[in-house]
Amino acid sequence: MYRVGIDLGKSDIRIGIIDEQYKIVYHDVLMMESEKTYQDTIKEIAEFIQDAIHKSGIGVDDLTGIGVGCPGAIDGENGCVVLSRQLNWRNVPFVKELHKYINYPIAISNDANCVALGEVKAGAAKNLQNVVLLTFKIGVGGGIISNGKIFEGGHAGGAELGHTLLVRDGITCECGRRGCLEAYASVEALKRQVQEAAGRHPESLLWESHKDASGEMKISREAFWRAVEREDTVATEVLQTYISYLGDGIVDFVNIFQPDRVLLSECPTEDEALFLEPLNTYVKTYCFVEDKSMVPGITGTLLGNRAGIIGAAALTEE
Amino acid sequence: MYRVGIDLGKSDIRIGIIDEQYKIVYHDVLMMESEKTYQDTIKEIAEFIQDAIHKSGIGVDDLTGIGVGCPGAIDGENGCVVLSRQLNWRNVPFVKELHKYINYPIAISNDANCVALGEVKAGAAKNLQNVVLLTFKIGVGGGIISNGKIFEGGHAGGAELGHTLLVRDGITCECGRRGCLEAYASVEALKRQVQEAAGRHPESLLWESHKDASGEMKISREAFWRAVEREDTVATEVLQTYISYLGDGIVDFVNIFQPDRVLLSECPTEDEALFLEPLNTYVKTYCFVEDKSMVPGITGTLLGNRAGIIGAAALTEE
Repeated sequence: MYRVGIDLGKSDIRIGIIDEQYKIVYHDVLMMESEKTYQDTIKEIAEFIQDAIHKSGIGVDDLTGIGVGCPGAIDGENGCVVLSRQLNWRNVPFVKELHKYINYPIAISNDANCVALGEVKAGAAKNLQNVVLLTFKIGVGGGIISNGKIFEGGHAGGAELGHTLLVRDGITCECGRRGCLEAYASVEALKRQVQEAAGRHPESLLWESHKDASGEMKISREAFWRAVEREDTVATEVLQTYISYLGDGIVDFVNIFQPDRVLLSECPTEDEALFLEPLNTYVKTYCFVEDKSMVPGITGTLLGNRAGIIGAAALTEE
Repeated sequence: MYRVGIDLGKSDIRIGIIDEQYKIVYHDVLMMESEKTYQDTIKEIAEFIQDAIHKSGIGVDDLTGIGVGCPGAIDGENGCVVLSRQLNWRNVPFVKELHKYINYPIAISNDANCVALGEVKAGAAKNLQNVVLLTFKIGVGGGIISNGKIFEGGHAGGAELGHTLLVRDGITCECGRRGCLEAYASVEALKRQVQEAAGRHPESLLWESHKDASGEMKISREAFWRAVEREDTVATEVLQTYISYLGDGIVDFVNIFQPDRVLLSECPTEDEALFLEPLNTYVKTYCFVEDKSMVPGITGTLLGNRAGIIGAAALTEE
């Protein structure tokens, strides 16, 4: 038997058909126009799904369901998108609308939840029952797996881990509150912190690479990590502070959820000695539990952008 | 049928026998010595239970189970007290030890969890499915009810809501971390904040009451609320800051858990206009959800110290 997983993004939709071993046997991407009504967009998604089923050569009776990961606050129980700023959707009855065209069972959840479920089913947290996953590329999103299932709290749009307090009276977050974790601990925030530090410290290696960039005002990711490797004081300080931001958030989530593992989707560097190791040390130091061997490890994810598709497909297992 | 609920404290043990309507039909208190071994303490608890059953006149066949609420990190699944600083217990196999003397089914959980469960079964959150309860008299403890059941996270000692970050680089908490919610948002912390503000502001009404107290250095709770009522600037400012501390913590928990209700066990004043109303306003302002009508209300509890007993007894329902 097979399942369809869909990862809805702002500008594209990715579809995958997975087998019972969570292997993606068919995969496609569709670019999206954002100007359409939700009805037109969902009609297009339906056609894209039918096209994928057709092209994959899988018999209609061999498909058991369709799962969808969507950014924003999702009411999975009622199949609704409560609010998705990325898609500009408010109170969209997604499942009902898609059922106009498609007869399979359909499930929908937040995209970070799907990434977490995908990694638990077939990735870095395979066979673990309790996982906290953070997506932190631009904003900070949370996906929580509790007893093997997605934990969303009491109502749609729970598990907003990015919108917990990190710095009282700090930077104003996009949500309007000041000092949210999201405003400090995303990789995008790290870029900003690097840029600001370089501006303040013309003597640093950051600044050197900054000047090299012939008019381009942005310090490249590579330049930053090179400066860290060369033990530039300013770059090191920026990184340590950033690790303490992200680490403080993770300590909170560990104290609340006591997971088996914390997963980070898309780390800013592959070099574990520079990033994951000090982050693990930080979290271990400040976690509440007395027996520090109980503190869960923090690792990267394994499935990359396949996780969202696999997790979405796995939504229909329950 | 009847159930026994036990609320373990540092210096006393309270026992209650409840009927199927969660009414306490028998109640007793036993003072404890803290010097004993856990084996001796548990033996004493067993005798106390047997005595209660005997005195209550309830037939042994009419009792279905015994539930225990204990401060600290509890591993309910294995019936163990992992760490209770209050009782000075580490890795105590509570249920196994108590079973040496008593044959009924026995369950154990954290005391704040029991208070939350009690209020959901028979108190301020009756019939609600998703509740976050904070005890905040001295420390800040959390009890979370999710889908009608206690939510503890993946391992023993989760839901440590008091040990989430409120003030980066703030006051050192008892747990060793700096800036925990517990260090700012407990009623004990409010007392400290009042005291400190009075020291800084000899012109305030706080100070006046302070001087009145003939050598006693502590400002009474009544004097503080009186100063707030008389709109003393310093007292008002202390209260507003305190509400923002507690409120910021609650905003985080609402963003994570999206409960139907937030319960506060033992508010510092009964006067809702002075405390619960501004607290509700604060939380509504800063919660993540766009539709503010979705923000759960914050109320006091209803059962007082009966909640812990009723909730403990209700542990054995599952």
